[in-house]
Amino acid sequence: MAPKLDGFFSQVDSMSEHFISRLRAAVAIPSVSSEAERRPEVVRMGQFLVTELKALGADVEARPLGKQPGKEHLELPPVIVARYGNDKKKRTILVYGHYDVQPAGKEDGWATEPFELTVDDKGRMFGRGSTDDKGPVLGWLNAIEAHQKIGLDFPVNLLMCFEGMEEYGSEGLDDFIKEEADKYFKDVDAICISDNYWLGTEKPCLTYGLRGCSYYSVEISGPGQDLHSGVFGGTAQEPMTDLVRMLATLVDTNGKIQIPGIADLVAPLTEEEKSIYRDIAFTMDSFHESLGSQTTIFPDKESTLMGRWRYPSLSIHGIEGAFSQPGAKTVIPAKVIGKFSIRTVPNMEPRDVDKLVFKFLDDEFKKLGSKNTLKASLQHDGKWWVASPNHWNFSAAGKAVERVWGVKPDLTREGGSIPVTLTFEQATGKNVLLLPMGSSTDAAHSINEKLDKKNYIEGVKLLGAYLHYVAEEEMVDA
Amino acid sequence: MAPKLDGFFSQVDSMSEHFISRLRAAVAIPSVSSEAERRPEVVRMGQFLVTELKALGADVEARPLGKQPGKEHLELPPVIVARYGNDKKKRTILVYGHYDVQPAGKEDGWATEPFELTVDDKGRMFGRGSTDDKGPVLGWLNAIEAHQKIGLDFPVNLLMCFEGMEEYGSEGLDDFIKEEADKYFKDVDAICISDNYWLGTEKPCLTYGLRGCSYYSVEISGPGQDLHSGVFGGTAQEPMTDLVRMLATLVDTNGKIQIPGIADLVAPLTEEEKSIYRDIAFTMDSFHESLGSQTTIFPDKESTLMGRWRYPSLSIHGIEGAFSQPGAKTVIPAKVIGKFSIRTVPNMEPRDVDKLVFKFLDDEFKKLGSKNTLKASLQHDGKWWVASPNHWNFSAAGKAVERVWGVKPDLTREGGSIPVTLTFEQATGKNVLLLPMGSSTDAAHSINEKLDKKNYIEGVKLLGAYLHYVAEEEMVDA
Ligand SMILES: [Zn+2]
Ligand SMILES: [Zn+2]
Ligand SMILES: [Zn+2]
Ligand SMILES: [Zn+2]
Repeated sequence: MAPKLDGFFSQVDSMSEHFISRLRAAVAIPSVSSEAERRPEVVRMGQFLVTELKALGADVEARPLGKQPGKEHLELPPVIVARYGNDKKKRTILVYGHYDVQPAGKEDGWATEPFELTVDDKGRMFGRGSTDDKGPVLGWLNAIEAHQKIGLDFPVNLLMCFEGMEEYGSEGLDDFIKEEADKYFKDVDAICISDNYWLGTEKPCLTYGLRGCSYYSVEISGPGQDLHSGVFGGTAQEPMTDLVRMLATLVDTNGKIQIPGIADLVAPLTEEEKSIYRDIAFTMDSFHESLGSQTTIFPDKESTLMGRWRYPSLSIHGIEGAFSQPGAKTVIPAKVIGKFSIRTVPNMEPRDVDKLVFKFLDDEFKKLGSKNTLKASLQHDGKWWVASPNHWNFSAAGKAVERVWGVKPDLTREGGSIPVTLTFEQATGKNVLLLPMGSSTDAAHSINEKLDKKNYIEGVKLLGAYLHYVAEEEMVDA
Repeated sequence: MAPKLDGFFSQVDSMSEHFISRLRAAVAIPSVSSEAERRPEVVRMGQFLVTELKALGADVEARPLGKQPGKEHLELPPVIVARYGNDKKKRTILVYGHYDVQPAGKEDGWATEPFELTVDDKGRMFGRGSTDDKGPVLGWLNAIEAHQKIGLDFPVNLLMCFEGMEEYGSEGLDDFIKEEADKYFKDVDAICISDNYWLGTEKPCLTYGLRGCSYYSVEISGPGQDLHSGVFGGTAQEPMTDLVRMLATLVDTNGKIQIPGIADLVAPLTEEEKSIYRDIAFTMDSFHESLGSQTTIFPDKESTLMGRWRYPSLSIHGIEGAFSQPGAKTVIPAKVIGKFSIRTVPNMEPRDVDKLVFKFLDDEFKKLGSKNTLKASLQHDGKWWVASPNHWNFSAAGKAVERVWGVKPDLTREGGSIPVTLTFEQATGKNVLLLPMGSSTDAAHSINEKLDKKNYIEGVKLLGAYLHYVAEEEMVDA
């Protein structure tokens, strides 16, 4: 029997300005987890959630995670956990989101102030964190509030877990989840995470797979201090020369990873799997649009989706310690640290990847014959994840999508990693669903991040509807 | 007949604290020419010189240079020109220095506040600009003041030319010098520049040659905005991948430039020239000390000096647009700009070098087979310079060094470029001498830049003594 949701939906519509104000207040808090000096803002954002959740009548706790490893002067922001409803007859759904954001500054090229939610005439709501992940997090709060306003019984017990370090490797969270698996999270029947995006701009999707991410740094040092290139150029071995030569060996222009052994770790492509990609709603045109250029590796949809979902990739992110400003500085940096990451897929075991990476870096550095010093390290990692899309958690979500958006969702995987997904699955043994709110053009992690007003408001309906379908779904696991 | 200088020398000694205060006041002005927001500080530093020079009775003018090319909202800092003495019977010596400095911040690793002159118990005066080039510039003012205090007749007419854009390519100065060659500078008999360093820490030198510097940027762009590496990694050609592969082709670990044709432009080494290097006071030990490590390209003095003075070198300085902070950011930058420079030597014509560089970059980029866009450009350049060390200007300076320091100076070349040297020579047709004040360990352009108190105070004596010897030297040109 399909749940009655029309009242809830029109209530959400009538509260849309209120929900946007809530998002505006959240975006205004620059909760950048990677910048030590902004840690108080991250904490303030957690406090904002505590206040909002309390006002909704939830039982809320801000759980401390201790000091930040390697930066012991810094306290980690707390995990905000909350329970809304405690009815033994109802299912208990755990939802996760994060309240920290990526760095952002007007000087990076934002068209608007990144920490000021700015809605344009197309209903695009620009602001850092709008889509990643403050919009989705507030979506759960909005759904609760709309139920209260209309006097509709909440269909499940909702457990919430909102962290403040996702954009900096979710420091401290894994231990917390493992610790609480049979305590705070012991009643959980299924898990829902809204922290990814539609594949395109028109069709919603449910996501059952994620790539992992192993982030490495390779440091090369030599001289005791930065040098004047006029005085020392031609007499000293320069760390920057060695570093660019090292980084150049990692991957080619077409994304082919050059580290021997990596390709052998990847699960072979079966004919059956190959056929899945044909039906996904995805066009190269819309992909070119979201990329903002035609500089794709592959000309076709299938190869592009496979390149994103089921093959590893290697990106070089930058260099710490070298000249990075506009203008012309003639310094020879004494110590430079290259940063790169590998997106991992089944069946790449992270420790095996590490071994291949470090061996490769050592071998390549030896080839240089340099007197400088190499120090390679894993900065953080998260494993890939693949779930069963035949679980009732997914079928409930599929019905909710159809009800709100009028279409069956694509079943997709994702290129990005959300390491906590795997941790929740392993710690609780329950099915995890990724239920995205935003669309492919939202530019998470880039300048001009946005969330469309429509995705936000329909997203609130979707999250609420999902909980109603979950409450009625037969408990059939595949 | 040797000039009588004992009174002048002891006067300088007795004024040393005053001279250090003058340097402290100058270092306190953060006249960083490469940072637009600090342009007012550069102007304030010029004004400081105007005030000091006026107080000494010099005729001073602050000459405007117009707008900064490419940044038309920015006014270039003025050239401060001054005349002290106008006696037709005396020689007229033009001295040049610069009052702007390299960027500096405590966060770069300075042990002290960079814009606060800090004297330690070894008499090292730490501070940005202490040795490059505020110490030497104030040296001329100090010499004048000591003459006045003791009532000693100033031996020459002194023309001064102090610019505020040296660390940003001396924008606007070339035209000014050419324009004024037969006006403000028409009486000039010889030129002295104090903007370089001793080869070591013990023995002074006179410098008759400089390498040039051609500074290039290579921009690679593709996507319309920065990308999430999870979403786009493996599907888009990444500009950073292309850039590190391009930069890796430029030079090897042992400093050998890989650009075909560059080596052919270099003047061949003669047996006679080779023999010069044997006698220069320079040890690998002291070089290792100033380098702060053993990571030299060559094991021996001669090859090292040649690598620094008479062969070209290529340094990669950094990348603009990529992630450059501590931590882990997983972004794929949409546009990255690599910066590198080539130190040039006789007989490399800058335009020939440009041609070889651009052709090489084009060829290497074609090899990548990338859909991204390459844009290479020359950011600025200055040609190499070699003068005649047999000129009376050099013999006068040699005698002054012997008188103040008790040793004959080495005749050296320099690895760094001071493009204005060549401009002065070409515009006036007069001999140019480089007369350094600081020593090899002064760390110009690095953190913890310093000038030893002894070099500063003896340097004031040296500049004064040089002018006395110049006044008596026979006008024999070699
Ligand atoms: Zn996120
Ligand atoms: Zn994110
Ligand atoms: Zn200088
Ligand atoms: Zn300098």
